[in-house]
Amino acid sequence: MRAFITLTTDFGLSDTYVAAMKGVVLGSNPDAVLVDICHTVQPQNVLQAAFLLGTVYECFPPETIHVVVVDPGVGTCRRAVLLVTPKGRFLAPDNGVLSYVAPAPHGPDVSGWLQPGVRRPPLRQVALPEGMSAYALTRPQWWRHPVSSTFHGRDIFAPVAAHLSLGRSPEELGEAIATVNAFALPRPRQVGPGRLLGHVLHVDSFGNLITDIRESDLPPAGLRVEVKGQVISGLSATFAEGGDLLALMGSSGYLEIATRNGNTAQGLGAGVGDEVLVTILSP
Amino acid sequence: MRAFITLTTDFGLSDTYVAAMKGVVLGSNPDAVLVDICHTVQPQNVLQAAFLLGTVYECFPPETIHVVVVDPGVGTCRRAVLLVTPKGRFLAPDNGVLSYVAPAPHGPDVSGWLQPGVRRPPLRQVALPEGMSAYALTRPQWWRHPVSSTFHGRDIFAPVAAHLSLGRSPEELGEAIATVNAFALPRPRQVGPGRLLGHVLHVDSFGNLITDIRESDLPPAGLRVEVKGQVISGLSATFAEGGDLLALMGSSGYLEIATRNGNTAQGLGAGVGDEVLVTILSP
Amino acid sequence: MRAFITLTTDFGLSDTYVAAMKGVVLGSNPDAVLVDICHTVQPQNVLQAAFLLGTVYECFPPETIHVVVVDPGVGTCRRAVLLVTPKGRFLAPDNGVLSYVAPAPHGPDVSGWLQPGVRRPPLRQVALPEGMSAYALTRPQWWRHPVSSTFHGRDIFAPVAAHLSLGRSPEELGEAIATVNAFALPRPRQVGPGRLLGHVLHVDSFGNLITDIRESDLPPAGLRVEVKGQVISGLSATFAEGGDLLALMGSSGYLEIATRNGNTAQGLGAGVGDEVLVTILSP
Repeated sequence: MRAFITLTTDFGLSDTYVAAMKGVVLGSNPDAVLVDICHTVQPQNVLQAAFLLGTVYECFPPETIHVVVVDPGVGTCRRAVLLVTPKGRFLAPDNGVLSYVAPAPHGPDVSGWLQPGVRRPPLRQVALPEGMSAYALTRPQWWRHPVSSTFHGRDIFAPVAAHLSLGRSPEELGEAIATVNAFALPRPRQVGPGRLLGHVLHVDSFGNLITDIRESDLPPAGLRVEVKGQVISGLSATFAEGGDLLALMGSSGYLEIATRNGNTAQGLGAGVGDEVLVTILSP
Repeated sequence: MRAFITLTTDFGLSDTYVAAMKGVVLGSNPDAVLVDICHTVQPQNVLQAAFLLGTVYECFPPETIHVVVVDPGVGTCRRAVLLVTPKGRFLAPDNGVLSYVAPAPHGPDVSGWLQPGVRRPPLRQVALPEGMSAYALTRPQWWRHPVSSTFHGRDIFAPVAAHLSLGRSPEELGEAIATVNAFALPRPRQVGPGRLLGHVLHVDSFGNLITDIRESDLPPAGLRVEVKGQVISGLSATFAEGGDLLALMGSSGYLEIATRNGNTAQGLGAGVGDEVLVTILSP
Repeated sequence: MRAFITLTTDFGLSDTYVAAMKGVVLGSNPDAVLVDICHTVQPQNVLQAAFLLGTVYECFPPETIHVVVVDPGVGTCRRAVLLVTPKGRFLAPDNGVLSYVAPAPHGPDVSGWLQPGVRRPPLRQVALPEGMSAYALTRPQWWRHPVSSTFHGRDIFAPVAAHLSLGRSPEELGEAIATVNAFALPRPRQVGPGRLLGHVLHVDSFGNLITDIRESDLPPAGLRVEVKGQVISGLSATFAEGGDLLALMGSSGYLEIATRNGNTAQGLGAGVGDEVLVTILSP
């Protein structure tokens, strides 16, 4: 049965772990269409995997199955889950990696945890939003045996994804659960009148800095952006306009800092967790 | 409808930009078959992307749609084009990245521009060769909305590729245009009797130096190749024959400099734009 | 005709060599499903390619065609072969790269050759095991012409894979042969009572050290593992248990040395060929 299954992992590109998962899927559902999202997530970096998945899953048809294996707790008592939503179905360890799909509500702890070097944000148990359901993968009859204690991607997630793509119901594959683990999404905070303090969330392969500041956080008025001691006045519309260092609304809906034909992260020595200050200029 | 769509970008392998394009294509044409050509083009390196595409597009069936997104001018007034040829259909920004498909004619400016570090060759407006037609992508009804000013790969090229693969005519997708931008292909030049001065066009992942000298430039007679102060006598037939440093006709039809079981670029400190001198030996 | 064809090469991810092979396959069999195993095999590293293929081919359906192009002798008189087995069909140069599918029997030479830096193990001619057959690819009518002397992946292996996937018999594609070249698989050796000396076979992208010691080599009793001067007591069940440096049975059935949330190869300065000593503790 034709079905889309995407893969997001920290397995890298120099081993056979990803191919092993694909072989297992195709062995059960020869008509599955496998699409790689990203396999170069930094090892064990749940935050990065969650963000990357969040930027892309809505580009796929809603019946797509997204398998996410960034799983430092593989083989321990951490749950493996299936999350069913109107915009996609997700198979992943229950370690927060689906937080951009079903985030924890904001609270006083939000602004503190995003620091340089953080890979695993603080998790909370989150009740599922209206329209979503979740299942713990507890039925070994759908798994590949023997199950390795270190490679559930191949032995649990891949075969379950194949069976799901063949029409098995979530109830057959696992037990319904009421909550999943998630972190509260990093968000900028007000630090004074007209002053918003955000952080770098991701550095893309061009070296662009993607922040946690959304378009809706910013008024249409003038503004100034400060990062790593550099000041940028106003927003540019494209990478080719503005000065060498520029700020613009990126394709994922977040404020980005970029450099015309250059690498901002290298140029500024900037990385995930660094602060970005936006000052709204009075009109 | 089953159709082949290839992707060539400078998006790298650690982000979700490529997957976003694939999701958008599959959302419109679930039967599209996506093939990655290369996503590690150096950022904004139009020359490298053009060359890489040139080495491979003829290996694909002629009905294939090749999408090329190396696009430093994204969001500006640069045109997005569809180029239809007997050997493939191409969707790309009109920035010279299709020059190995529809090159500019040679002129006095050819030999000068290939220098180390050049990423964007000088462009000229080129009338289309017999049998080719081109279209400016000017019809927003086929795009994904809202259109990001920084990611036309996802919002313009991917949906247009999908619609083209579903049988939409080029005329529906854009307006016919008479010229496209292209650069004249780098070619060696005569620098004396029996002396040909070429350049390194590409360094492959083995470290082999691929030059702009073609088989037809070389007589069947004996020859000597000089690069970075090293002298190579004669051509080898395979990587396993000849001395440690050797010259041979590569699989893309260009003269290559290679090292048996070694990396020539690292060994010689050589790179794109470096000079390669061929001396034809009198019989 | 729908058919799975996997690709394992040392072509890297920054060239078009892999895509050229895919284009050629799809040109002959538009319904082929191409799956990348790994393209970042170290250049000319036959040992690494053989090992990687060995870890994954049994995850695929048995009718899958596995194409392996790590081929330092391309264009020379080395044979190109098709190996037919009950667990998969394999197309590769006859240089030992299929040794984990059809290994040479053990002999006195086994333990000596695995040293740091070895890429090409000593080969022997091996009679095929019961149930396997092999063919030398000697019939140019199935190839792509002209055949480059440096890219048989595109001009011989890819078109032959396509024709095989379309139902051509091995006998049409080549001549039956009775032996193939293979190396004897690296295995630990007894170096004293209860002392087993193995080697690091592979370093994965997490930095885990995968050894040549199998589960069946180890008694259920207690044991101690020594590598690079570090001592590990007992086996852990998962990456999250045990001390920072730990030993466990990995997902491919080999003893692995890992570091909780860390990179063992970097931490210990360890690599392929390094010795790993296991001491069985008396009960």
